[in-house]
Amino acid sequence: MTETAPQALRIGMVGHAFMGAAHSHAWRTAGRFFELPLRVEMTAVCGRSAERVKQAAERYGWQSAETDWRELVARPDIDVVDICTPGDSHAEIALAALAAGKHVLCEKPLANSVREAEEMAAAAQKAAADGVRSMVAFNYRRVPALALARQLVEQGRLGRIHQVRAQYLQDWLVDPEFPLAWRLRKDRAGSGALGDLGAHSIDVAQYLTGQRISSVGAVLETFVTERPLPASSSGLSGTAGSERGAVTVDDAALFTARFDGGAIGVFEATRFATGHKNAMRIEISGSAGSLAFDAESMNELAFHDRSEDASTAGFRRILVTEPTHPYLDAWWPPGHLIGYEHTFTHQVRDFVTAVAQGQDPRPSFGDGLQVQKVLAAVESSAAALGVHIPVQGAGARS
Amino acid sequence: MTETAPQALRIGMVGHAFMGAAHSHAWRTAGRFFELPLRVEMTAVCGRSAERVKQAAERYGWQSAETDWRELVARPDIDVVDICTPGDSHAEIALAALAAGKHVLCEKPLANSVREAEEMAAAAQKAAADGVRSMVAFNYRRVPALALARQLVEQGRLGRIHQVRAQYLQDWLVDPEFPLAWRLRKDRAGSGALGDLGAHSIDVAQYLTGQRISSVGAVLETFVTERPLPASSSGLSGTAGSERGAVTVDDAALFTARFDGGAIGVFEATRFATGHKNAMRIEISGSAGSLAFDAESMNELAFHDRSEDASTAGFRRILVTEPTHPYLDAWWPPGHLIGYEHTFTHQVRDFVTAVAQGQDPRPSFGDGLQVQKVLAAVESSAAALGVHIPVQGAGARS
Amino acid sequence: MTETAPQALRIGMVGHAFMGAAHSHAWRTAGRFFELPLRVEMTAVCGRSAERVKQAAERYGWQSAETDWRELVARPDIDVVDICTPGDSHAEIALAALAAGKHVLCEKPLANSVREAEEMAAAAQKAAADGVRSMVAFNYRRVPALALARQLVEQGRLGRIHQVRAQYLQDWLVDPEFPLAWRLRKDRAGSGALGDLGAHSIDVAQYLTGQRISSVGAVLETFVTERPLPASSSGLSGTAGSERGAVTVDDAALFTARFDGGAIGVFEATRFATGHKNAMRIEISGSAGSLAFDAESMNELAFHDRSEDASTAGFRRILVTEPTHPYLDAWWPPGHLIGYEHTFTHQVRDFVTAVAQGQDPRPSFGDGLQVQKVLAAVESSAAALGVHIPVQGAGARS
Amino acid sequence: MTETAPQALRIGMVGHAFMGAAHSHAWRTAGRFFELPLRVEMTAVCGRSAERVKQAAERYGWQSAETDWRELVARPDIDVVDICTPGDSHAEIALAALAAGKHVLCEKPLANSVREAEEMAAAAQKAAADGVRSMVAFNYRRVPALALARQLVEQGRLGRIHQVRAQYLQDWLVDPEFPLAWRLRKDRAGSGALGDLGAHSIDVAQYLTGQRISSVGAVLETFVTERPLPASSSGLSGTAGSERGAVTVDDAALFTARFDGGAIGVFEATRFATGHKNAMRIEISGSAGSLAFDAESMNELAFHDRSEDASTAGFRRILVTEPTHPYLDAWWPPGHLIGYEHTFTHQVRDFVTAVAQGQDPRPSFGDGLQVQKVLAAVESSAAALGVHIPVQGAGARS
Repeated sequence: MTETAPQALRIGMVGHAFMGAAHSHAWRTAGRFFELPLRVEMTAVCGRSAERVKQAAERYGWQSAETDWRELVARPDIDVVDICTPGDSHAEIALAALAAGKHVLCEKPLANSVREAEEMAAAAQKAAADGVRSMVAFNYRRVPALALARQLVEQGRLGRIHQVRAQYLQDWLVDPEFPLAWRLRKDRAGSGALGDLGAHSIDVAQYLTGQRISSVGAVLETFVTERPLPASSSGLSGTAGSERGAVTVDDAALFTARFDGGAIGVFEATRFATGHKNAMRIEISGSAGSLAFDAESMNELAFHDRSEDASTAGFRRILVTEPTHPYLDAWWPPGHLIGYEHTFTHQVRDFVTAVAQGQDPRPSFGDGLQVQKVLAAVESSAAALGVHIPVQGAGARS
Repeated sequence: MTETAPQALRIGMVGHAFMGAAHSHAWRTAGRFFELPLRVEMTAVCGRSAERVKQAAERYGWQSAETDWRELVARPDIDVVDICTPGDSHAEIALAALAAGKHVLCEKPLANSVREAEEMAAAAQKAAADGVRSMVAFNYRRVPALALARQLVEQGRLGRIHQVRAQYLQDWLVDPEFPLAWRLRKDRAGSGALGDLGAHSIDVAQYLTGQRISSVGAVLETFVTERPLPASSSGLSGTAGSERGAVTVDDAALFTARFDGGAIGVFEATRFATGHKNAMRIEISGSAGSLAFDAESMNELAFHDRSEDASTAGFRRILVTEPTHPYLDAWWPPGHLIGYEHTFTHQVRDFVTAVAQGQDPRPSFGDGLQVQKVLAAVESSAAALGVHIPVQGAGARS
Repeated sequence: MTETAPQALRIGMVGHAFMGAAHSHAWRTAGRFFELPLRVEMTAVCGRSAERVKQAAERYGWQSAETDWRELVARPDIDVVDICTPGDSHAEIALAALAAGKHVLCEKPLANSVREAEEMAAAAQKAAADGVRSMVAFNYRRVPALALARQLVEQGRLGRIHQVRAQYLQDWLVDPEFPLAWRLRKDRAGSGALGDLGAHSIDVAQYLTGQRISSVGAVLETFVTERPLPASSSGLSGTAGSERGAVTVDDAALFTARFDGGAIGVFEATRFATGHKNAMRIEISGSAGSLAFDAESMNELAFHDRSEDASTAGFRRILVTEPTHPYLDAWWPPGHLIGYEHTFTHQVRDFVTAVAQGQDPRPSFGDGLQVQKVLAAVESSAAALGVHIPVQGAGARS
Repeated sequence: MTETAPQALRIGMVGHAFMGAAHSHAWRTAGRFFELPLRVEMTAVCGRSAERVKQAAERYGWQSAETDWRELVARPDIDVVDICTPGDSHAEIALAALAAGKHVLCEKPLANSVREAEEMAAAAQKAAADGVRSMVAFNYRRVPALALARQLVEQGRLGRIHQVRAQYLQDWLVDPEFPLAWRLRKDRAGSGALGDLGAHSIDVAQYLTGQRISSVGAVLETFVTERPLPASSSGLSGTAGSERGAVTVDDAALFTARFDGGAIGVFEATRFATGHKNAMRIEISGSAGSLAFDAESMNELAFHDRSEDASTAGFRRILVTEPTHPYLDAWWPPGHLIGYEHTFTHQVRDFVTAVAQGQDPRPSFGDGLQVQKVLAAVESSAAALGVHIPVQGAGARS
């Protein structure tokens, strides 16, 4: 190889909990399996506790550690700021990073409010003019089965899209003694199942169909309204203490939707679906075919082709592990599965490629803002007895 | 056997299309597999065309034929009137039959309007005082897997019910050239997917949970608004002609629901779910367990028991063919499946047993009326941009 | 209808246990759903106990009862003798019936030995020359999914057949206290899982592939060698008594096979497959496609078409309920399942049609004999440490 | 953290094709997710082509590259030799490495002949006395679902094991124009589907049941006996050239087996199972329960518990992603899948842990030898018309 080594892309990551672990793995791994146009350097990780961030740096392979994200953003040896914190800090960090000319990868949901998301999208658009890239981390777009699903829709294999049914089913809150973690507090998380899970469903539904949700009619429910306060304030779970506090987010969110392309849909996001651990399911019914996906079997896509003879038609279980499938040429022979963290690795590949090619990666902050508007409409509808509320900015359906 | 032969129960059936064929089979078969307390006699069938009803009588094993249902109802040798006609004639026939002191089994949905259903329920209640029985034919209650599901809920195996997700997916209308059969005309059918399919889902959801729907927020959609008129006006399909007419019912119905016991749910009934032929699916999530059912695999029930150790917990595929399962002791050894028509045979068993024992069978006309009220609330909500509409008569949720 | 009523075909059935119930239902039902060229009359049923056969006649709808099968065979008002007894009496009854010029439908396996089966096949062939028809009741050929599978193979959709994997899994003998029923006694049943279950697998494998098994290498095993004697000698189960007797048949039979068309296969028949109730499974792998079937989901056929693009290829779940599927135009709309007993109804349709058309129905007694020879080769191989034993009469593989 | 950094374990890997990529990822990743008692250093990789091994080192993260495995084995800064080459070189490399006092991890099958494997096992046993560890890389033991399966058997949840059915189904050779890669040449690969796939099934079957195969009766088949020679001699696939050569290994291997604990089994390994990509399936039936696994759904284990009430019994789909499941506490929240390469990461964890603790890891070279003996017995049986051949050294079954 006489070619010169690719230029470095130096990453600074803020937050090092569950999402930070997944992102770290992705930054570390993408270049091992994909031909990246830029060499990823894991320059710095940032967390509030000096001791814990140092441990995280060592564990996950970051070259240095910071305890103040402002310091990290200010470092001249950082090209990308990767935001893995809870939603309440996304806006502040992202705006600062963009202002500092850093590319930004931001966990979903983009923000805790439409207002914040609007600021972020505006800043991202402005920065893009100067070659600064930004992307929101809806990682399910990088599940090969869903990327394949998108291809099939684009190829017209589904025809006109009539219906979407989307469910995101988890069950970790069924136990009423599960403590009041930050994800159950509106001030930190923005919303509950809605923003945490429903945001994924909304993004994927819109991504796959190529249609945007134009109105929603919703029900939000909190089944367990009071929970033990965690012994310490941090962590996903913590240990249940003796005091109790109010749950200020939804346990489950249900809504019907109309799309601007004429489709209709039903959505459900819940943390009370006993027995379902991470069932992010989506089905799309079109005039020419149908698709079905379940993240608990994430290497599979079910596809029904209506053009087949009725005698041999049926939902096919496509095992999405062929080299011709999206992202799969980098991995193992057919039939050998990939897992959850691969979606982050694919995300890194796509992000780095876009940065190198000077293109705006998708989903953009604008896409994230639009999802935020759907979330806001869901909350408005739920507050108004479920009447259909137009999503802000949605074009009227002709 | 020195015991005297059981007394006869003489049946008169009105209508002999798809449903008539299923009911005929059930009347003919129930006594062959179950010990019925009364001997079923298939006395008369009624249809408008003299020739066709005669053929049907011969084909399905009825002893005589009538062309005017009023004649049938008036016959002294008829004990039971079984109504298998489209919904627009249910009320008139049922009221006459009850007035004549005949027991009535009526296909679902009970009627095409709440008003009709109210009259029927009132008449049924009055007749019951005189020992005249009536029942609406929500046959899915007689699927062994769903009867087992009900047992599990009653035994507390699901705990507090949090959520219901119900889908009834068919796809026979995806072809825009499918003709404008009677099921697509509001005057005959009352509604489209909503009443035809959604009524089943509503009844089953309420039956399984033991809760009643108290309010709904709905979207109704007609994707194909004009279809070729059938060459002849009868039949499910007929042959497409050159003229077109307006589709006056919904192709798909979506709604969120609140139940009077605190559960929430999402419902979808559609004839546009490409690839799904009769996917009547329901999942119920409770604090102690969960259930899932799909009519396309009707001999199976999935059950998750949350009391199991996490390491070995998982949805079980119960093959509902054991002699200890509801209705199954009458059929084949374990692992040998039963089919769609068995639900009607079970219905006959339960109906005949109730008549013999002098008890009111369920679902009653009152149950049918209540489903009708939910259907009406769905239509009202859809007309009001999806705002949640209380189901008439539903108790307020405490 | 001015056409004259079809001529009657008068049936006499011997045996009225599990199989008799299934056959009775089929004789009673076939003409209700199919246009039969002959009118079936359920003329007489025969059983050893006068009281029990009279009850059976009443229960299942037979016009008269006999206690000696010789009387039944001699009756001039009987056209067809349907043999539903254990295997040790098949030969005697069938030979007598054929000699009396009666058409014969005989349960499988055809006999308990090759010698008996040879006699029966010879007699059947001789009788056929006089227009007397005979058929062995391998009912799985009449499962629509398997009839469809046969069509696909015939159409070349599988290409050259390479491999067969067949399992017939039940578990009713896992309990060592299950009594020593007749099916566990070699003198009555001929063999154990091998003849009861394996015979079905062998017939289906040969039927689907169009190839005959030419040699087998086998292991037979009896896990529980002694069981309680049943309180009474009759019945599938009976009640376990205090005395014990030796199990003289196999609990499980395993064998590899070579077919005369070049395919190879693995077979397993067992009554010890805990959790499997009636898993008659078969998979066929060919150069152009593959098939998979499981009787516990008998309305489904999985089909993989290798001509599809790798990106969208996958096993399709064909729900075999379309009107274009074998036998299905007689039943319910798409997506509505049929059950186990329908296979017998289809068998009656095919048998009656063949009789009316003066054709020899399949599987013939010759087919049954050939299966018997495979069973015999399995037993010989098992007795010879599994060395591959040629199936008697099998052509050498070129 | 004031604790001193863990000591280093310096790895040298021989071979860098498919298996080398998987092993590299595992060495690189294990310490990021698991608390390893030793720090892994990826010291050197070895391959014959200087250019290609240099690229591999860079790509996979090895600090240096060698072109002669003897040099690698001689390096004093190497503690572990990881052998990822085809089977024909395993013995020579492993023996040299053990002689040099290096711990050895060797890909499966252990060798291409029993003789080689015996030498290796003897050398490993001798080396173990000096604290040198060795292990054969049957990575399927490190699939969490199979590790869980083993736990269930050990806990007695299956009772007495009666039957095993094992299939390893791939289809990459169905195309007769697929070139004659090294895996199709007996001199390089030892055998075909048998050693490549069947070896995994044998190891897993013995591991799960805790019983050893004592005799086998086999059929081997090569459906396509001649294939195009690859343009170049290396690589899994290469490009098909115009010349053809003889396939000298089996395309499919079928065998029945007896185990020394009384179980019986059927095994199938094939590269001709159209539509199956990596269906390593195993089912185990015991007196108290049953298990089923399929590598194409590797995060799932089906479990049937016979102690459950018949009304609610059924195979459970255990999603093996709980923190209480083997290896899973290192990964993601419940419901988030892992993939194929994780099995190698787990293998590294177990190997490194054993080295650090001074224990002999399993599967040992002795285990590998025993599998080799089963493979040899299969080949002997196939050559002797399938007669059951005792596995060398297997204890007689009492």
